[in-house]
Amino acid sequence: MQKRINRLLEGQADKKERKKTLQELRLKLLRSQLALSEAAETPVVIMVTGQVGSGRGETVNLLNKWLENRGMETHAFGPPSDEERARPPMWRYWLSLPPAGRIGIYVNGWYGEAVIDRVQGRIGEHVLATRIEETREFEKTLAAEGALILKFWYRISHDRQAERLHELESDPVNRWRVNELSWLRHEQFDAIDETARRVVEATDSAWAPWHVLEGGHPERQTLQTAAIILDRMQDRLKGRREEVESARTPPKRRPVPQPQTLQGLDLTRSMDKAEYKEELTHWQDRLSQLVRDPVFRRDYAVVAVFEGHDAAGKGGSIHRVTAALDARHYRVISVAAPTDEERAQPWIWRFWRQLPPHGRMTIFDRSWYGRVLVERVEGFAEKTDWQRAYAEINHFEQTLLKSNIILAKFWLAIDADEQLARFQARSETPWKEHKLTDEDWRNRERWDDYQAAINDMLRYTDTTAAPWNVVEANDKRYARVKVIKRLCAAIEGAMESGG
Amino acid sequence: MQKRINRLLEGQADKKERKKTLQELRLKLLRSQLALSEAAETPVVIMVTGQVGSGRGETVNLLNKWLENRGMETHAFGPPSDEERARPPMWRYWLSLPPAGRIGIYVNGWYGEAVIDRVQGRIGEHVLATRIEETREFEKTLAAEGALILKFWYRISHDRQAERLHELESDPVNRWRVNELSWLRHEQFDAIDETARRVVEATDSAWAPWHVLEGGHPERQTLQTAAIILDRMQDRLKGRREEVESARTPPKRRPVPQPQTLQGLDLTRSMDKAEYKEELTHWQDRLSQLVRDPVFRRDYAVVAVFEGHDAAGKGGSIHRVTAALDARHYRVISVAAPTDEERAQPWIWRFWRQLPPHGRMTIFDRSWYGRVLVERVEGFAEKTDWQRAYAEINHFEQTLLKSNIILAKFWLAIDADEQLARFQARSETPWKEHKLTDEDWRNRERWDDYQAAINDMLRYTDTTAAPWNVVEANDKRYARVKVIKRLCAAIEGAMESGG
Repeated sequence: MQKRINRLLEGQADKKERKKTLQELRLKLLRSQLALSEAAETPVVIMVTGQVGSGRGETVNLLNKWLENRGMETHAFGPPSDEERARPPMWRYWLSLPPAGRIGIYVNGWYGEAVIDRVQGRIGEHVLATRIEETREFEKTLAAEGALILKFWYRISHDRQAERLHELESDPVNRWRVNELSWLRHEQFDAIDETARRVVEATDSAWAPWHVLEGGHPERQTLQTAAIILDRMQDRLKGRREEVESARTPPKRRPVPQPQTLQGLDLTRSMDKAEYKEELTHWQDRLSQLVRDPVFRRDYAVVAVFEGHDAAGKGGSIHRVTAALDARHYRVISVAAPTDEERAQPWIWRFWRQLPPHGRMTIFDRSWYGRVLVERVEGFAEKTDWQRAYAEINHFEQTLLKSNIILAKFWLAIDADEQLARFQARSETPWKEHKLTDEDWRNRERWDDYQAAINDMLRYTDTTAAPWNVVEANDKRYARVKVIKRLCAAIEGAMESGG
Repeated sequence: MQKRINRLLEGQADKKERKKTLQELRLKLLRSQLALSEAAETPVVIMVTGQVGSGRGETVNLLNKWLENRGMETHAFGPPSDEERARPPMWRYWLSLPPAGRIGIYVNGWYGEAVIDRVQGRIGEHVLATRIEETREFEKTLAAEGALILKFWYRISHDRQAERLHELESDPVNRWRVNELSWLRHEQFDAIDETARRVVEATDSAWAPWHVLEGGHPERQTLQTAAIILDRMQDRLKGRREEVESARTPPKRRPVPQPQTLQGLDLTRSMDKAEYKEELTHWQDRLSQLVRDPVFRRDYAVVAVFEGHDAAGKGGSIHRVTAALDARHYRVISVAAPTDEERAQPWIWRFWRQLPPHGRMTIFDRSWYGRVLVERVEGFAEKTDWQRAYAEINHFEQTLLKSNIILAKFWLAIDADEQLARFQARSETPWKEHKLTDEDWRNRERWDDYQAAINDMLRYTDTTAAPWNVVEANDKRYARVKVIKRLCAAIEGAMESGG
């Protein structure tokens, strides 16, 4: 196939041969798409970017004509809406990802946004570096989760761009593609080209390599693009997954300095009823004031994560928090088995889905940490997958912090005896017995495995930016007060440091 | 149970009996919730509304304490975001609905919004009437699809409200619940009470009856509320579904005046290549201008529906439309089998999910009309269900029109011979053969059944407000030009009439 395509590109083929080759290419592409769709394992992410007049649009149109549209969607994004501005920049791209078996074509996508934001001066070098870093991590996670990522940059020359804009303007069907903005971009050609080059270099990776093609020649570049897509789809169909493996390899795990551990926790800490009532009231009052602060409502959000041993009292603590909140301002997400829409996406996708806008709090009753706890201990996730999860989690949390989402992570710790006592109490309390399942007893048998997983979790995710609040929870009153106190401290701290 | 609760309400029970009764009520409620969750057939929608100080919050808190939180979510809505303002008012409520087996508790919800909008003068009597109508239809569809709907209005007196606000202000844990707005609402008491009463009366229905309780007495009203919820959950568990049946009964179907039919269509209409090229270019150019009109971008959206016989050329027509559009401004939704998140919702939910914001176009390749076509003919939907779908569809389309979503419905009609010819062509064209399935041949055998279903569809949904564009499609060129021409006319028409 490649040989015959080269003959076309070199103009060695006559009309008849050309037609024959194109039909064969189209057919092979379609069959590859259908085979990948059939297998329903691989989402395909195709990024096409390039300056005005580079021929992106024509390439996308041909792909839409050749491929089965029922299995694909083309995404182009305008300026972010206010819902989008109130979330991390990658949020809208995460939510638009194609599920396994489908193709998502992105016109400019996260690349176009970063480059133009920088050229327009909406972001500085520092933020651009952050966007590049986030893009690398984003694509790495997608690839590690099995996505086939194809990125095309159609690089055009300043002169060719001018020619193309004039050509388009004189074509009644395409003249709308050219407007004042196109000519403004033409004036900005050098800045855009230079910035795009840097972004492309910095985001070229084994798992999401760039294909840089000469732009401004729609027919030619489309043919080259189609040939590359076919080639990489066929590799995947042949079971070649080097990119996936390169992305799946866990980065070297660096323990955080002085992580907390469960050893040496003083679980005897307790609080008497009178003090509890007074303290709880005080801190609930404080919390209700904090989340009503106009600055909080405008610029901040809270993500509170509740993890802990079974029966450690997560639900009870959450109730004491929400009692101080207006129902309009929070959501409690109880993490259960993923839905099929969620299973068809990267593992962390279902948490991206739930991020709060500014002024709101989302409380997770269990969270993304299940990946390195139950999924590790029960063997639901392969070793390389839960091992790379620490880095993915740290990166995810960094991303939240960067867009003023205040993170409060709580580990509610009880000891084995206390758990046994609570299991027994549950089994004897009619409206609690349903909470006690065989699974709880199974988990309990693996107590030591869980302790190891928990200590690893603390070792690798108890970061300075997103520290764990380990809460001694043998005494419910003490635990509930500490939780709400620490939550207030987290909000105050973030708002004072203004970050 | 009810007897013992009455003893409590009448103050005949001592402390011990009181405790025993409450525990039993709590346990029965929980078990009913778990049983409904187990069956995973019934979403439960609980609406609690009432004026400031009526005790809504306390009631919701107790339900959250008594019920299993993993199976429920509480929803309270603030002012709409811009994404929400760019959609019909009920959009955000549709998207928040609990899936089958779960409970959604709404604080004020669509009722509070309508009442306050009216009292604040943001909407007039006419719009209020529309909101009421939409609420009735919304609840009717939910009920018909199996939802258990419980609506509680805690009606409080002006004096009791004042007392309650003072009580709350002097309670450190609850004082945040009272602010300037609360006292403003207190001043507006009469207007709110009068408007709420009218809305409640107008939205009381067999499938979603109101329970009006004396508000301002949290303990008492919560107990009454819990007893009613238990009662109606138990009825449902006993298989009593009167409400569902009352909502499922199809309304009398009124044919629209002079609906179009497939009889007497002149399918010989055609267009030669030269004229086609010229016309297509002309109308694509026109379309590209229309969707760029600042007024369109700010105030309008388009929903284009493509239906037709198998192989009638829907995909080809859609391509000719999208060729004139910027990828940022449209989405093509190919309607396939629903996902499990969609199957757990009312049948029309998955279309609500896809509505475009202003300035955008969403193109449906097959649509909600599948309900009265394939689902009817293949028997996927029960007769009463597809029969009531005509009214549900007309109502849905009315709702879109009311929020400036321009509707363009296309039926691409070919005759049986043309279809056979195209099936044969597909089977002989390598990159089209995958489009030809056994299902196509099966459908073809039921040609007459489909003709009957199509003519009924036209008879009941070819409304003046949302007319069908029946397109003679034996000749692809003629069909494509007619489609894009009619699409332009629909947009121009709507923008000229300013509605």
